Amino acid sequence: MSTFVKRLGGIVTNCYLGIDAGGTSTRAALVLPDGTCLGTGRAGSGNPISAGPELAAQNVLTASQAALANAGAEPSLLADGIAAMAGSRVAREADWLNDPLHAAGLPISLTLEPDLLAAFLSATPQPDGYAVVAGTGAVAVRVRNFELERVTDGLGWLLGDAGSGFWVGHQVVRHGLAALDGRADPTALTDALLTALDLDPDAPAEVEGRPGAIQHAVDLLYTWRPVELAQLAPIAFEAAREGDATARAIVHEAALALRAALAAMLAPDISGPVVFGGSVLTQQPTVAEIVGAQLPEQEPILTTDGLVGAANLALRRGGITVTEAVFDRLTETIAARR
Amino acid sequence: MSTFVKRLGGIVTNCYLGIDAGGTSTRAALVLPDGTCLGTGRAGSGNPISAGPELAAQNVLTASQAALANAGAEPSLLADGIAAMAGSRVAREADWLNDPLHAAGLPISLTLEPDLLAAFLSATPQPDGYAVVAGTGAVAVRVRNFELERVTDGLGWLLGDAGSGFWVGHQVVRHGLAALDGRADPTALTDALLTALDLDPDAPAEVEGRPGAIQHAVDLLYTWRPVELAQLAPIAFEAAREGDATARAIVHEAALALRAALAAMLAPDISGPVVFGGSVLTQQPTVAEIVGAQLPEQEPILTTDGLVGAANLALRRGGITVTEAVFDRLTETIAARR
Repeated sequence: MSTFVKRLGGIVTNCYLGIDAGGTSTRAALVLPDGTCLGTGRAGSGNPISAGPELAAQNVLTASQAALANAGAEPSLLADGIAAMAGSRVAREADWLNDPLHAAGLPISLTLEPDLLAAFLSATPQPDGYAVVAGTGAVAVRVRNFELERVTDGLGWLLGDAGSGFWVGHQVVRHGLAALDGRADPTALTDALLTALDLDPDAPAEVEGRPGAIQHAVDLLYTWRPVELAQLAPIAFEAAREGDATARAIVHEAALALRAALAAMLAPDISGPVVFGGSVLTQQPTVAEIVGAQLPEQEPILTTDGLVGAANLALRRGGITVTEAVFDRLTETIAARR
Repeated sequence: MSTFVKRLGGIVTNCYLGIDAGGTSTRAALVLPDGTCLGTGRAGSGNPISAGPELAAQNVLTASQAALANAGAEPSLLADGIAAMAGSRVAREADWLNDPLHAAGLPISLTLEPDLLAAFLSATPQPDGYAVVAGTGAVAVRVRNFELERVTDGLGWLLGDAGSGFWVGHQVVRHGLAALDGRADPTALTDALLTALDLDPDAPAEVEGRPGAIQHAVDLLYTWRPVELAQLAPIAFEAAREGDATARAIVHEAALALRAALAAMLAPDISGPVVFGGSVLTQQPTVAEIVGAQLPEQEPILTTDGLVGAANLALRRGGITVTEAVFDRLTETIAARR
């Protein structure tokens, strides 16, 4: 008798597989209908756009097999599963994902689900509500009956992502350099930016009548991919806490943009809950407070683990009712295996 | 006796070569010390960064030879010359440019000069003053004694160019899409943008809860190079003229950014003149008026032809005093050959 069946007291039970397939890593959770997580697994990028479909499918398979191994469970116990990923509706045809799984002996076909739906369902067992996620990018969604009904923003660094980490980091650079360039009021962002970039603020003027530090910053920053400016966002949050007026204005504008995204999602017949995800909302209480004021009767629920939502969705799609108790068990038992 | 010497009444005179070496085209003017333009020539990009030094040097040579041929003049008449180009101080070593010229029998060595200095000197014979140039990019300079003393902005689309054509076009896209996305007040920019992009505003919602037109715009615009958004700037100027509040705010903010750049350049001992260049300042009177208000006693001089400044600088660097009369003759005789 396997470890797994022993742990279940000898009762053979169907298991469900929730996959959180991100651009950086893929995580899998094997869960029981009562919400107990039996095992988790991890692999590299499971996003077919960033990693290519072959590698993404391989990583989903690797994470799934690792979760089964971690649980000491046989593949034959698998009843159903879902994989949450960005852009998953576009890629509704999932043969690229399921053919390699079947070839490896997994007896289920994963359904693709939007990662934004999993983000919402990682914080609540409710069928309806809202989520605002602001990390490198920024997006807001309305969920109705366990489906994404409406999405706003998430248009990427050039065209949208208003209030995101990229947006804030971009403003840090533009305002910090404008002040050094004499075009804006002095701000603490300038020195903090040059420090972060390891540049000498007093570098002699060298090139075409410009302060040397500006030319050095420009030479450096154009070697970055634009989205990498997101890593400079913490400079604004820290300077804002210390009272810098320019930084405060940037953070305030970011919060208003995220609040406008949430406002755009509101439907009169859905009062909440409201889920906040991403570092800008989960780690910056000033921002969260302004965005949360859009729905003053709701206390926003912060979420950091999309895997809970993927497991929640795997049970839902498998026909299991996820009660508050089941949801709480999912949250606790997945957290215990991080 | 050659056509050229006949035209000069038989008196052999030194000629000066002014080159405006841009990223798209290179123009050359052969001028006399009295400001008379004897001939002009044209070739492709003369910028060593965008075209590579070999091709850039070849284009400068081609344009120079075309100007000599246009004038019916022998290379031996050349006394001196300059080539105005972006980033020219960085590339002070100009062997890459002059070696091919010498090999082709031109008996002069071109001095590199900043294109921004030529922009200023294309509008005035004065030694001191200011220039603000806002086309795709945006930059302001202070000129003292025929040298660039200080430059602000011109930091490119990602880090600066505040108030430029790119900046305005970028705002058109962001605000136009935000309104369509429900995150901002309706604006005429949305329909004008979709029309410019040849997209159907009523495309059915297709992808992940987003209006179809947004997804189509995103799919299209990320195939562009970011700077190409500059071509959408006219949408804002037209909508602003027709009273759209969002467009007016964008145009106003652009003008204030350009005004701040000019303000950053002011020195107490230089009152003017102020030269405006680039389509945003030369074709948008609303913007020019706001920027010009920074120096209310000066009537800004609009300039569109950097070749006049290159010729002006060629005479200056050759030791010729460019009086108002000489400058006016440069302007008239170069314009006559456009």
